[in-house]
Amino acid sequence: MDEINAAIHSIRPLDEVSMNAAQQHLDRLTKPQGSLSVLERMACQLAGVQRVAKPSVPEKAVVLMAADHGVAEEGISAFPAEVTEQMVYNFVRGGAGINVLARHAGAQLVLVDVGVKADLAQTLPIQHCKIRRGTGNMRREPAMTRQEVIQALKIGIRVANELVDKGVRVIGLGEMGIGNTTASSAIVHVFTGEPVSVVVGRGTGITDEFVTHKIRVIEEAVALHQPNAGDAVDVLAKVGGLEIAAMAGVVIGAAARQTLVMLDGFIASAAVLAAYHLSPAVKPYLMASHLSEEPGHAVILRELGLTPCLRLNMRLGEGTGAALGMTILDAAVKILNEMATFEEAAVTSVG
Amino acid sequence: MDEINAAIHSIRPLDEVSMNAAQQHLDRLTKPQGSLSVLERMACQLAGVQRVAKPSVPEKAVVLMAADHGVAEEGISAFPAEVTEQMVYNFVRGGAGINVLARHAGAQLVLVDVGVKADLAQTLPIQHCKIRRGTGNMRREPAMTRQEVIQALKIGIRVANELVDKGVRVIGLGEMGIGNTTASSAIVHVFTGEPVSVVVGRGTGITDEFVTHKIRVIEEAVALHQPNAGDAVDVLAKVGGLEIAAMAGVVIGAAARQTLVMLDGFIASAAVLAAYHLSPAVKPYLMASHLSEEPGHAVILRELGLTPCLRLNMRLGEGTGAALGMTILDAAVKILNEMATFEEAAVTSVG
Repeated sequence: MDEINAAIHSIRPLDEVSMNAAQQHLDRLTKPQGSLSVLERMACQLAGVQRVAKPSVPEKAVVLMAADHGVAEEGISAFPAEVTEQMVYNFVRGGAGINVLARHAGAQLVLVDVGVKADLAQTLPIQHCKIRRGTGNMRREPAMTRQEVIQALKIGIRVANELVDKGVRVIGLGEMGIGNTTASSAIVHVFTGEPVSVVVGRGTGITDEFVTHKIRVIEEAVALHQPNAGDAVDVLAKVGGLEIAAMAGVVIGAAARQTLVMLDGFIASAAVLAAYHLSPAVKPYLMASHLSEEPGHAVILRELGLTPCLRLNMRLGEGTGAALGMTILDAAVKILNEMATFEEAAVTSVG
Repeated sequence: MDEINAAIHSIRPLDEVSMNAAQQHLDRLTKPQGSLSVLERMACQLAGVQRVAKPSVPEKAVVLMAADHGVAEEGISAFPAEVTEQMVYNFVRGGAGINVLARHAGAQLVLVDVGVKADLAQTLPIQHCKIRRGTGNMRREPAMTRQEVIQALKIGIRVANELVDKGVRVIGLGEMGIGNTTASSAIVHVFTGEPVSVVVGRGTGITDEFVTHKIRVIEEAVALHQPNAGDAVDVLAKVGGLEIAAMAGVVIGAAARQTLVMLDGFIASAAVLAAYHLSPAVKPYLMASHLSEEPGHAVILRELGLTPCLRLNMRLGEGTGAALGMTILDAAVKILNEMATFEEAAVTSVG
């Protein structure tokens, strides 16, 4: 845990001086004070994160962590487990939703295999960091060991560090893993105490009877393993996922390096919730993007005190919402940098 | 009215064949069916509007109609009336919020003077279509004559036509006019029957006592003129605004030419409501962008059955929300055009 604790201990509060300077500048721009509301808050948050009064339009990356879930064998997903592997190839070829939206946002897409249940060719242009071939089936055994959780967290921290070293200033969270809404629902249930039936949704499109089955699988897994909500590593090990733990690592790694984290939907946000339970210091580095159709997503955002600016009823994951959120953040930064002040424009201001 | 009636009569329903073809293609893409929800609906709507199964990323323009309001002399705005003129110069120089966000969205900005209360230099690179120097003070006299409303509607139709002729395929509505939340509140009150106190907000930032005063001014104006909700021209003439009538013209002109209209906030949407009362056939050509802080905006969107995808609590107007909405529409179109199908990507689909 040394590397992880070191990262956690280097997370600083946001820089109030830069945030205040940004807001003061926004108040001098040719608009009624506060009239761009959320855009203004986004710009100020980025100023505080980067510790500069006028951040420029940030370099952006979406990190897509891919892994499989043993619990998929319980029939809790509409898609078979092999789709995880197939989608990795789709990501590499640029044909998936996140490829389109990352290009739209001007964000690079970083693909990481942390646990796909297939041997991906080493020549495939992704980061090969497989910890194991999918998690264990949480209905029968822990998803993984504590050591594997720590390994995944470290991979996330390392990926974040590499991106920051290359100049990336906003990291979006993305994931692929058939069965991962089940793991995310279990995590959110354990951390928040919300009943499983409140947290669970249809995932990527299963029917009513499957929803009932999915709830039962989660309740049985939690009853079997009794994850300790006060120990985030325990929760991730017992009912989590390799890609979820790795995303939690990205959050910690980004926050430790004064880098904003753009949330995506339910699964990425479950990872953020785990990161928050590892260290609440990550919170000011978080920005919500969209509100997913998955009911558990609203539960997480409420718990974290975050409000999403996009309402698109999406339920795709992959980082698609994060990419769109980045386009709104860019707009906010441009407002801060490009608008004229009342003085410059000779417009009559209000006292 | 001949020109206006001709435009209204040429508005067609959307092309169902193109919309269905677009949805069928979306259902073949590598994502759970319907998982991009609002993005998918946006893409299908554009397909129906343009009558093609696969519309390309559209050319975009924000039309900013500027005019003054006689009712400003009643002290219903935090800003003095001369700010309208000053802001026109700011728009021309590129320093206002809409300049920044239109650039961000890749939309051209078209500035039109339909009634600024100042003599703008004819050399100023805007469209000079001034009908009169601001409206009459609705608390004492009708805002304008029926003939002036018709003139404004025609200007809007002509501006829309010119843009469509130049290849523009999505038109965003924008406006500038100190006092125009007062006119918009009156319009929404008359058309929807919602009490003035429900519709009225703080405009661009006035205090509680001003809100009470603003409500009284509107109630008195409506009591004095008794606008006929069944006659949209009457409503616009008595309690409307020159820029509001001109935006209503843009809506009709755009719909008549199979061109999507991106709504902005409260004032632009009040204009859309007036256009809808002139012809309900415009409705399928409308797309909501953001939800304004002005309480009357939600009233209008409910009346029109539209759901905004952006929740940014903005209250600036100018077309700023419309510009951001265009960036989401572009993302939707790219999804339709750029994602791989299950077949192309060799990903296992679900029956």
